[in-house]
Amino acid sequence: MDVQILGLIAGALTAIASMPQLIKVIKTKNVEDISWLMLVILISGLSLWIWYGFEQNELPIILSNSFAVLINTTLLIFYFIFREKNDDLT
Amino acid sequence: MDVQILGLIAGALTAIASMPQLIKVIKTKNVEDISWLMLVILISGLSLWIWYGFEQNELPIILSNSFAVLINTTLLIFYFIFREKNDDLT
Repeated sequence: MDVQILGLIAGALTAIASMPQLIKVIKTKNVEDISWLMLVILISGLSLWIWYGFEQNELPIILSNSFAVLINTTLLIFYFIFREKNDDLT
Repeated sequence: MDVQILGLIAGALTAIASMPQLIKVIKTKNVEDISWLMLVILISGLSLWIWYGFEQNELPIILSNSFAVLINTTLLIFYFIFREKNDDLT
């Protein structure tokens, strides 16, 4: 198999697997189980992977980690929006 | 920066970020929020990334995804152990 296609399939599968967390947070508006510190560590790691992808000139690495940064930054934004709302209720 | 070291730091950060989920499941013995289907999709994607790493001969890709497979396979095993226990209680 073309290694480029292999990487794109791998990236698509890990991307699909990351979606339910985001969907759940949007549906339930509950961010109690999310650690913002872990999200920040994860986003830092993913950003370094993008950098790595550019250094190695590998599109699958760049694409899949950019998508993951997008998802996890959205989660982080929702964390701060919903956390305040949760605080209001208690 | 040496791109190998960059990849290893990136891998270490994404590895650290994956640990709290496992620790939480071990502590709470609660797997209610985990989807086994998503874990299977994730493990499939990570395994393809390992394959990709071997094809490209890139150690950071192989190491970080192998670690992630280990963590998520452990989660999947705990899912089936604790799900039965949860069923007993209800």
